[in-house]
Amino acid sequence: MARVNEHYAKLKASYLFSDIAKRLKAFTEANPSATIIRMGIGDVTRPLAPAVVSALHAAVDDMSKTETFKGYGPDYGYDFLLEKIAEHDYGARGVKVAPDEIVVSDGGKQDSGNIQEIFAADSVVAVTDPVYPVYVDSNVMAGRTGPADATGKYAGLVYLACTAERGFVPELPSRPVDLIYLCYPNNPTGAVMTRDQLTTWVDHARSAGAVIVFDAAYESYVRDPEIPRTIYEVPGAREVAIEIRSFSKTAGFTGTRLAYTVVPKECMGRAADGSPVSLHALWCRRQSTKYNAAPYIIQKAGAALYTPEGQKQVREAVDFYMENARIIVDGLRAAGLTVYGGRNAPYIWLKTPGGLSSWEFFDKLLNEAHVVGTPGAGFGSCGEGYFRLTGFNSRSATQEAVERIKSRLKV
Amino acid sequence: MARVNEHYAKLKASYLFSDIAKRLKAFTEANPSATIIRMGIGDVTRPLAPAVVSALHAAVDDMSKTETFKGYGPDYGYDFLLEKIAEHDYGARGVKVAPDEIVVSDGGKQDSGNIQEIFAADSVVAVTDPVYPVYVDSNVMAGRTGPADATGKYAGLVYLACTAERGFVPELPSRPVDLIYLCYPNNPTGAVMTRDQLTTWVDHARSAGAVIVFDAAYESYVRDPEIPRTIYEVPGAREVAIEIRSFSKTAGFTGTRLAYTVVPKECMGRAADGSPVSLHALWCRRQSTKYNAAPYIIQKAGAALYTPEGQKQVREAVDFYMENARIIVDGLRAAGLTVYGGRNAPYIWLKTPGGLSSWEFFDKLLNEAHVVGTPGAGFGSCGEGYFRLTGFNSRSATQEAVERIKSRLKV
Repeated sequence: MARVNEHYAKLKASYLFSDIAKRLKAFTEANPSATIIRMGIGDVTRPLAPAVVSALHAAVDDMSKTETFKGYGPDYGYDFLLEKIAEHDYGARGVKVAPDEIVVSDGGKQDSGNIQEIFAADSVVAVTDPVYPVYVDSNVMAGRTGPADATGKYAGLVYLACTAERGFVPELPSRPVDLIYLCYPNNPTGAVMTRDQLTTWVDHARSAGAVIVFDAAYESYVRDPEIPRTIYEVPGAREVAIEIRSFSKTAGFTGTRLAYTVVPKECMGRAADGSPVSLHALWCRRQSTKYNAAPYIIQKAGAALYTPEGQKQVREAVDFYMENARIIVDGLRAAGLTVYGGRNAPYIWLKTPGGLSSWEFFDKLLNEAHVVGTPGAGFGSCGEGYFRLTGFNSRSATQEAVERIKSRLKV
Repeated sequence: MARVNEHYAKLKASYLFSDIAKRLKAFTEANPSATIIRMGIGDVTRPLAPAVVSALHAAVDDMSKTETFKGYGPDYGYDFLLEKIAEHDYGARGVKVAPDEIVVSDGGKQDSGNIQEIFAADSVVAVTDPVYPVYVDSNVMAGRTGPADATGKYAGLVYLACTAERGFVPELPSRPVDLIYLCYPNNPTGAVMTRDQLTTWVDHARSAGAVIVFDAAYESYVRDPEIPRTIYEVPGAREVAIEIRSFSKTAGFTGTRLAYTVVPKECMGRAADGSPVSLHALWCRRQSTKYNAAPYIIQKAGAALYTPEGQKQVREAVDFYMENARIIVDGLRAAGLTVYGGRNAPYIWLKTPGGLSSWEFFDKLLNEAHVVGTPGAGFGSCGEGYFRLTGFNSRSATQEAVERIKSRLKV
């Protein structure tokens, strides 16, 4: 009798995006002439950079000829990409990460969902609240939690509240935890961690024997030179931190799929008898057994981002989205709203006015300004009373949305 | 204290390919003038089909323009691909598989490694011997086995012996099992299952409440019209079978990465209380939480295989490799060897002559013919005394290897 993984039954169905779609549908049916602007999307809208397009065409040509055709690639990625990552994303910042500490994959979502597999089934896991749901759901599916309560919180998970008072950076956990997921610049709050704050977390992990999974998917949006771009800028982080990076938002690869995870050789977990076990070796074993590297042509596209013209084009795209974010932040403030984020991240996190719930504000924004965003409650109970907008739309749509909010929203 | 997944420590390190590399190195150092032909590879060597190359270039151009740029795609694959798969791979054979029962991914290895996640942690798993190692290792890592014994067999796994007497098709398990992995046409033996044999397995799964994971990665190599190309040709299979398909060997996508898994809506597992649970819903939840669909350009390349010219080009490539396989089979028989497979699969499985172990034959073939193959013992204890060659090399290398075996090998 094939029994199923019962832990899946604990998962709270995510109604966030289907609820949004339902409300949108009802609105457009009632207001067929309204032009709606979607500012809730977490997806890029600009085409791939010319350097990437050229590299893709060249790599496709490689695949069309016997002499340059590529079958199975190296398990952890081609050297031509690993070496560029090590040199540009780390070496250039004075950080030591060797090419063979990097494992290329097809997504930060995949890596952040799969990384828990190399840890013990009864590990105690800490996540921020609000949170990117993959960290939570992957651990629920693996059986590391009990059922969810009425607020959506799973028994056994340690939730680290992120509040405006603390700049949406959590306090250290009040009880021992084994695995800590941190994402800074943060989705959804747009918050960043200062070097001191990140150092506090690294020091905590070192003293507690915990491991930090650091999701740096948005590092290229950091503008403030004092904010660390990688957790390995913090001394000692190599012993306790795994870093996940993505090309999705940096280079518009959400539909192209490329990412990587760094597991330094010094980073150790413990066997049941307390002896150290290399997490690098475990992750390599996981990936070589259950994964098969990203496509050759996509890895070639990724490598093109590290050429001078690729770097310039990526910076232009990031600058474009960040100018959108600035326009939103300034506009919302002019409209009398309290706004966070948007300075070192593409996400704008606003306090709903007048004590509205995040869903009430969703309806208000849709009805009054015909603008769609994402209710903060969708990211966790501490997201209630907040609302997410993003800088990923076109300039004209962004400007129009801000004008509508300023002129039509009754704050 | 971050403890690791202790089950990884049970994994027997696979020394197969590193052992092969070591022996090769020693041989080439002692015989620097020898020209070695590699016939052990399970990887394609011909370039992508022209229809695929055109589709890739066109899709890259789509990604270069704002109007046609694609960000995140649908969780389970684009309709343009799902509909082609349903129509050509199933509908055209009179088999009912709906587009929304198909989940596109970047590899059969990934899907066959991940599928166990949706089943209970204490499921009893049956695998063939010899076997594709991913089925075994993914279940070891998930904790469904005890340690391995001296022969490499893991406690708790049910091994289904595949012997020459039975055409390398196993008998039904002698004790109850929950999950059964079958791969036909088979890697490494090149064996196929007749319709009657497959029906026996489907009927068994139905009566026992078991689920079959059917790996059909090599279905396009089937030449015999009586051999099922999909398990769903067998009545009742929709209730008990998950089928995994790959574009790797069919269309030379080993470095391009595209695959899919079919989970029919009728296919049910059981909750602890015995109530039925949709495996389709669980697999969709698994993929939407921990995966993000294959790249748009790669899905476009896959769809191009279903055009008339794409179909023709794929058939030509498969025919090419199968002609290699025929040359090998005929040549080895002429050399006095006992040979299996190679008629409906790209793999040739030969009985080592004179009671040699598979590693002894490896050395003999290397020393006498300067040809490299894969020792059967690398695929499980029932592979001892056998040896795998493949049809994936060039025509000239294949012919030269066969000539050497015929003229130089002392059988």
